[in-house]
Amino acid sequence: MSDDPSRNESSDDSRDQRHKARMERKKAVVDQAIARADRDQGVLLVLTGNGKGKSSSAFGMLARALGHGMQVGVVQFIKGSFSTGEEAFFRRFPEVRYHVMGEGFTWETQDRERDVQAAAAAWDKARELLADPEVSLVVLDELNIALKYQYVDLDELLAALRNRPAMQHVVVTGRGAPQALIDAADTVTEMQVVKHAFKDGIRAQKGVEL
Amino acid sequence: MSDDPSRNESSDDSRDQRHKARMERKKAVVDQAIARADRDQGVLLVLTGNGKGKSSSAFGMLARALGHGMQVGVVQFIKGSFSTGEEAFFRRFPEVRYHVMGEGFTWETQDRERDVQAAAAAWDKARELLADPEVSLVVLDELNIALKYQYVDLDELLAALRNRPAMQHVVVTGRGAPQALIDAADTVTEMQVVKHAFKDGIRAQKGVEL
Repeated sequence: MSDDPSRNESSDDSRDQRHKARMERKKAVVDQAIARADRDQGVLLVLTGNGKGKSSSAFGMLARALGHGMQVGVVQFIKGSFSTGEEAFFRRFPEVRYHVMGEGFTWETQDRERDVQAAAAAWDKARELLADPEVSLVVLDELNIALKYQYVDLDELLAALRNRPAMQHVVVTGRGAPQALIDAADTVTEMQVVKHAFKDGIRAQKGVEL
Repeated sequence: MSDDPSRNESSDDSRDQRHKARMERKKAVVDQAIARADRDQGVLLVLTGNGKGKSSSAFGMLARALGHGMQVGVVQFIKGSFSTGEEAFFRRFPEVRYHVMGEGFTWETQDRERDVQAAAAAWDKARELLADPEVSLVVLDELNIALKYQYVDLDELLAALRNRPAMQHVVVTGRGAPQALIDAADTVTEMQVVKHAFKDGIRAQKGVEL
């Protein structure tokens, strides 16, 4: 597709020069932005929206943090009863404190009282991680769902986030992040569905979704 | 909730009952969708958009796949010169075939000819992985950027994707996915920036971005 028959060597040369000029301008912009961004601090990331990739992104950050020799913590709200590939994987590592809320999706249990108790236990674990300066990254997976059903108190969460160790990073996932959490966050990504294999009759596949 | 006649009652019991009824309806919908989605096949996922989380999501899927004991392959286009946490991490595993294109971001090198050669070597590695039925998941990280600069030929990519092993999953990341790739994909997520810490002067942090 890039083979334009009219293109000769000299136009290749000028193409290369245009490329170089464009890249020089781009590098200047990037370098300036990097020079401006000179603070180190723990960041609060929120990954929300209906699209696929929220939890897997948080788990990718876990892998990154482990690559840097960090201690990390994970609390899986809601998704507890699933035996996911990442749980099997990350449990191998002593640097990972892994807590799964035991009761699965809310529409599976259909029992609010049981969900509330399971969420309270998960929140206790999260609070512990958010108070521990040894833990460099805390993933609170599907917490937004627990907030939506008011299984976890939003104000209590915001206070725990404000008071956490200064260099601790926190990643919160789940669709429907509340506005107050978005306001408190440093980085927020909204993941939008463009298309989804599930709708075409392909079931969730091991390795990419389970 | 407006369809629930018991909503004027304020006891916990009625709240729990409403919850149960709502969750029963939700479970029925979810169960139907699951029953309809009964095919197993390799899926092509595209993670695009300007928001944070595309590459980390792909790396989370790698962790998932490793949790299932799968063989996986990674080719990092463009980002090669960065020594990222995930590279340090995933190189520990013999199940991971990891290939990094050696030349870093295009605006760092500013040399189109060198980029083209590095991309060609990376594409050779990708083509090898896409032809190997032993490899269950292939991550082509930042390939969309290489496509945009025409370092990799789109038609050649689409042919390699069509002809890959039937059960092989492929994840392509990078902003600006071309429409033909989106058309070919099973699942596409567009990651949108709601806010980004970098703009507030916080530099990229180890564990979450590096």
